[in-house]
Amino acid sequence: MTEQKQGRTWAVHDEVPVKKMPTWEARRIMAYGEEMMLVENVFLPGDTAPEHSHPHAQITYVIEGALEFTLEGETRILRGGDSVFMAPYEVHKAVAVEKSLLIDMFAPMREDFLD
Amino acid sequence: MTEQKQGRTWAVHDEVPVKKMPTWEARRIMAYGEEMMLVENVFLPGDTAPEHSHPHAQITYVIEGALEFTLEGETRILRGGDSVFMAPYEVHKAVAVEKSLLIDMFAPMREDFLD
Repeated sequence: MTEQKQGRTWAVHDEVPVKKMPTWEARRIMAYGEEMMLVENVFLPGDTAPEHSHPHAQITYVIEGALEFTLEGETRILRGGDSVFMAPYEVHKAVAVEKSLLIDMFAPMREDFLD
Repeated sequence: MTEQKQGRTWAVHDEVPVKKMPTWEARRIMAYGEEMMLVENVFLPGDTAPEHSHPHAQITYVIEGALEFTLEGETRILRGGDSVFMAPYEVHKAVAVEKSLLIDMFAPMREDFLD
C-alpha cells in the first residue's frame, strides 16, 4: 500500500505499512487528511530524532516508555501519558531513554512524509 | 489548575485535571496551543460520545480497548492502535465495547473545552 496524497480516513494498525527510519526503529503513518496527520513511532533505547523544525504545529504524546525531549532549549523527560505541544518552526529533538511507543500529530498534514 | 486559554506546552499526565463527563468516565485536556489540542479520554463499556460535529478537524486514536465508531453513517470497530480522521463538520459518534483509553486530537484547538 502506498501512501495516498488525499488522506486515510480509517487506519487499521496492522494494515498500515511500517517503515524503518534512519535514526529510530519504526514509523507508521496512521489516519490523516489535509488538516492533520497522526504518526506512530517506535524508538529503541538511544534512538534519536535529531534537532529539527518545520512549519507544522506538532504534539507528541508518549504511550509507553521514556524520552528525553528538548524544545527550544528546554529538556524534559516524557513518560507514558505525557505530551508536549510545539508551535510552528519551534526547534525540537528527542532521545529515547527506554524503548518507547509514541505518537506525533501534525497540523496541517506532513505532505513531505508521503512517498 | 484551571485551563489556560493560551495553551499548555508540557503536559505531565498526573498533573493535569481530570473531569468526569456526562456520558463517559474521564477527560483530560493535555498539551495544546492555538493550532491543535490533545485530549485523553477513558470510556467504560457502554459509555458514549453522542452524535455530533464541529468545525475542527479531528483524529481519534485508540490506545487500548475497543470502540464502535460511526463517521458519516459508516460504523467500524476501532481497537488498540487504530485511528480515524474526521474532516471539519463530519458527523460522528462512539460507543465503548470495552473499557477504552483513547486520544482525540483537534485542529485548531477546542476553545469551547476550556473553563
